Amino acid sequence: MEQGTKERSLVSKVMDGLVTGIVEEKYGAVLPPQDVLSKEFDVSRTVMREALSMLLARHMLDVRPKIGTRIRPMRDWRMIDEDVVSWRFRAKPDPEFLRDVIEFRMLIEPRASAQAAQRGNAVDVAAIRDAFESFRTIRPDDPGHLAADELLHTRIVVASGNQFFQQMAAIVRGALSASNPLVNANQHVWEEVIRKHARVVDAIERHDAAQAEAASRELIDFAAEEIGNVIPADGKQA
Amino acid sequence: MEQGTKERSLVSKVMDGLVTGIVEEKYGAVLPPQDVLSKEFDVSRTVMREALSMLLARHMLDVRPKIGTRIRPMRDWRMIDEDVVSWRFRAKPDPEFLRDVIEFRMLIEPRASAQAAQRGNAVDVAAIRDAFESFRTIRPDDPGHLAADELLHTRIVVASGNQFFQQMAAIVRGALSASNPLVNANQHVWEEVIRKHARVVDAIERHDAAQAEAASRELIDFAAEEIGNVIPADGKQA
Repeated sequence: MEQGTKERSLVSKVMDGLVTGIVEEKYGAVLPPQDVLSKEFDVSRTVMREALSMLLARHMLDVRPKIGTRIRPMRDWRMIDEDVVSWRFRAKPDPEFLRDVIEFRMLIEPRASAQAAQRGNAVDVAAIRDAFESFRTIRPDDPGHLAADELLHTRIVVASGNQFFQQMAAIVRGALSASNPLVNANQHVWEEVIRKHARVVDAIERHDAAQAEAASRELIDFAAEEIGNVIPADGKQA
Repeated sequence: MEQGTKERSLVSKVMDGLVTGIVEEKYGAVLPPQDVLSKEFDVSRTVMREALSMLLARHMLDVRPKIGTRIRPMRDWRMIDEDVVSWRFRAKPDPEFLRDVIEFRMLIEPRASAQAAQRGNAVDVAAIRDAFESFRTIRPDDPGHLAADELLHTRIVVASGNQFFQQMAAIVRGALSASNPLVNANQHVWEEVIRKHARVVDAIERHDAAQAEAASRELIDFAAEEIGNVIPADGKQA
């Protein structure tokens, strides 16, 4: 245990040193080779490799053949631990968890939709329309349906342009994976779900922020009702 | 490299197996001892130790002397990688980053304040009042000032009762560490900052959700203006 703990704290120290160098723009766009870094930090190549792989896993670095280890733009650095998110959503949801999920979607998605309408460029908007077309045409009993749903909502959050909202996409996907099977129970509901999504996408296309926000709220309200989730009054207020 | 990669993927597989057991409530409240688990998964004790330490770091487990390795409530599982958050906020902030930070605070904190007013129990509210008293009395040039500011905002987010909002507290703290030094520039501004915080705390104490939300908005608007950050029009709409 001792040995492992000691090595881990050394890896942490090296990670911290690397990050300090990166945020102080000491290295430019590409990190020096591993053996140069090992010498600079006076650690074994194993420790350096471990530290670099931790940063790689957090989307802070990128290994490019012939170029080397590139430093990724800071907005890509992953604040969300996607493993934990997916584990969290794997458990059988209790009513409180579902309430929190709906509240969180209600927080993020309407604002993200409004900002997508305001800031989304032609490429963003075309990607949203495209994802909607898949969503609309894949039947709910097809395993591709959830994937299309997740892609559509992810693209809206990405088009918001806000890097914190973008980081939340993993949680939005988790939320959809929990609610999607509960919502698409029958043909009638499924058709209504498509109409409600269409209104969000149309408003984004028209760059109508207020309508996009309102349509997104309606969509989530509808999903919440279908889930049969008792949302506390504050979900509706303000 | 091969060796390390292989071991890492084995650790991942074991982590995944442990989590599956946990979410299926296979183990109850306390995990079996390490050597029992190593045998169950047919891996070395080193690999098992590594897998457990990864779950420990994510606040999924808790080592208690004489009791063993307790499984923590799922709402405590850390979706946010606090290392990345603190690294991200260590870099010199550019205007776009500051805009995104303010937008994110504007998203989370007013809703969290409203929910704290609605759901906060006597203990939550007393803790918020207590943190406000420290914040009010520690001068901005004291290093304890930022800590008091962070504690106050964290307690409001915690009192919201929503586990996703609670997970965002790390980002809120990062945002405060970036904005606090810019806001408390002079005596006049500092006094206004205190008055604006007081309104949020008072409204939470009165369990007035609408007022708590409005006061929180005003506080963040004021901070944004002081930062001299040009917030795009959509930050105000809707």
